[in-house]
Amino acid sequence: MSTLRNSVRLPGPFHMRHGGVLPQADIVYETWGELLPAKDNVLLILTGLSPGAHAASSAEDPSPGWWDEMVGPGLAIDTERFHVVCVNSLGSCHGSTGAASVDPRTGRPYGMTFPVLGIEDIATAAREALRALGITRLRALVGPSLGGMSALAYAILFPEEVGALVTISSATRATPFAIAIRSLQREAIRSDPGWHGGNYHGAGPATGLRLARKLGLITYRSAKEWRERFGRERVDVREEKDGVFGVEFEVEAYLESHARKFVGTFDANCYLYLSRSMDLFDVAEHGGTVEAGLGRIRAESTLVIGVETDFLFPLDQQEEIATILERQGRRVRFERLASVHGHDSFLVDMDRFCPVMGDFLKNV
Amino acid sequence: MSTLRNSVRLPGPFHMRHGGVLPQADIVYETWGELLPAKDNVLLILTGLSPGAHAASSAEDPSPGWWDEMVGPGLAIDTERFHVVCVNSLGSCHGSTGAASVDPRTGRPYGMTFPVLGIEDIATAAREALRALGITRLRALVGPSLGGMSALAYAILFPEEVGALVTISSATRATPFAIAIRSLQREAIRSDPGWHGGNYHGAGPATGLRLARKLGLITYRSAKEWRERFGRERVDVREEKDGVFGVEFEVEAYLESHARKFVGTFDANCYLYLSRSMDLFDVAEHGGTVEAGLGRIRAESTLVIGVETDFLFPLDQQEEIATILERQGRRVRFERLASVHGHDSFLVDMDRFCPVMGDFLKNV
Repeated sequence: MSTLRNSVRLPGPFHMRHGGVLPQADIVYETWGELLPAKDNVLLILTGLSPGAHAASSAEDPSPGWWDEMVGPGLAIDTERFHVVCVNSLGSCHGSTGAASVDPRTGRPYGMTFPVLGIEDIATAAREALRALGITRLRALVGPSLGGMSALAYAILFPEEVGALVTISSATRATPFAIAIRSLQREAIRSDPGWHGGNYHGAGPATGLRLARKLGLITYRSAKEWRERFGRERVDVREEKDGVFGVEFEVEAYLESHARKFVGTFDANCYLYLSRSMDLFDVAEHGGTVEAGLGRIRAESTLVIGVETDFLFPLDQQEEIATILERQGRRVRFERLASVHGHDSFLVDMDRFCPVMGDFLKNV
Repeated sequence: MSTLRNSVRLPGPFHMRHGGVLPQADIVYETWGELLPAKDNVLLILTGLSPGAHAASSAEDPSPGWWDEMVGPGLAIDTERFHVVCVNSLGSCHGSTGAASVDPRTGRPYGMTFPVLGIEDIATAAREALRALGITRLRALVGPSLGGMSALAYAILFPEEVGALVTISSATRATPFAIAIRSLQREAIRSDPGWHGGNYHGAGPATGLRLARKLGLITYRSAKEWRERFGRERVDVREEKDGVFGVEFEVEAYLESHARKFVGTFDANCYLYLSRSMDLFDVAEHGGTVEAGLGRIRAESTLVIGVETDFLFPLDQQEEIATILERQGRRVRFERLASVHGHDSFLVDMDRFCPVMGDFLKNV
């Protein structure tokens, strides 16, 4: 749904992990910083559920990026050193092939005929895109949230191709709590009469998507932050519709305005697929146990960042990654950050995240 | 919606805290144990959002009560000592007057014409019901969750009439996190086309109510419990509808079966009113500050119980009640329980709750 920056068509049909084939798959990406002739200074960013490839503003596209304070010349992810690539995930709707794309076999959007999406597919498609660009090895791979799962999958599937690994607020597999939250978000979308089994036109299931986004927002932040920020403040003008049952408290107004912004910028079917990919991901499928799965990783160094107030990808899930990798003799740095912003801290609390990231990457 | 056990019509029109009048109000209640001639052995239970007055099974109604292990002869709430009364909250749908009741002025259900419900209304209606029965003082008052808020309101509004007070997993006022969760539950109901602005017949907004209940269940338990209980277990037979997006994990099947049970036993409009009453409640409205509000309480002793894994009514909200009352020179016992069952622990973890309750009440 954003302007395509650069797009690469993956060679041949793309076989999906859970069955099914995409006759063709396009991956949209953006880059910052120069690629050295040896092509050995590449840092790949894999994203969370909703952002596209526009991680940072640039001369080509000066609109704000989703990680502007992190990625740039002299910043923690230093574009004077690294050739930074950010790809839009397979299955997303910001240019890469997903459920909102047209199936060339039918001339109509895939909708629910899009095959089940796995985190491994996101990783594999990103890797194929880089290979199509002549890049065969990553100096560093960085992924927050869903992107952290994708980064783990990448490092497990292509162990010799990842130099340094950074996972942020991620997981080796989803907890039942996270599955329950996401299941409910998807049900809100699927229950909206505007969803039509995925065959919608125009607005589609706007109400369901708004509900799903609100639940997302609730679980992306922390109760502590909201207490400090909103308390029991009331809005100046209460929404007339449904009286006291509509928007009366500031926290309700916050959710409403953010959810409205989201609707119209994200495709509901793509949301379903990306959301489910997180539930399905399980490192233990790569060797029988989580330990065996992580045991395939060959990164020379790994940075694992977790946030104390994150209850969607809780701290002990970060600790698990770090502890297992360390036990297997890998060089690991584990950072437990006291941010108040919950799961979203990596987008908000740059004062805490940038120094940790910069310090790790300067030795990469 | 349950069989009326005993019902009392409150004298005169009932004036609501936030404006509006009920021309008549009925309160349904159940009792266990003998009332002494002096009427000085009454223990009143105020309930959470969804239960009715049937706290325990009895000869009259042998069906299971919602607190069967807590209330009975020789149990923690000992019906051989206390005349136990449990009322169905004003605004609920289990016999007491609420949005699902018929407005005698129109002959039609109130629906959204029911006035805004305050926690104070629930407390006042319960007190009026007892007065109609000739009971003017409580030996003890017990309330979990919403019922704990109602119990605080009762003890603040009628300080000389409460001997001992027990609040469980309650709050002096809602956090923005809890408001956000409940706001989303209500929006799910109000967004259901079957809601019709509250003027529904038959099933009504069953889908919205199911979504609301699932979100309730997610916040009533704890992530820790679900990890131990469900892990990543899959259901034996995957729901065919919507394939992988339907019920695949055990935790999804759990939510689905419980939510289905709830729909059809609870009225959606009543849910809206009771839910909002918790958002609106604020002890600080009784004197300007939370301290001043709690300062009105004259209970001879208070037991405050909180649960470590409760993130809807978190432990520090229990601690706040206990600390403030103690600072004001009241006798307070604060129990911090390590139950894994989150907010719902008082319904589940009887091994922890019963001894604490029994020990406190034996000195009342």
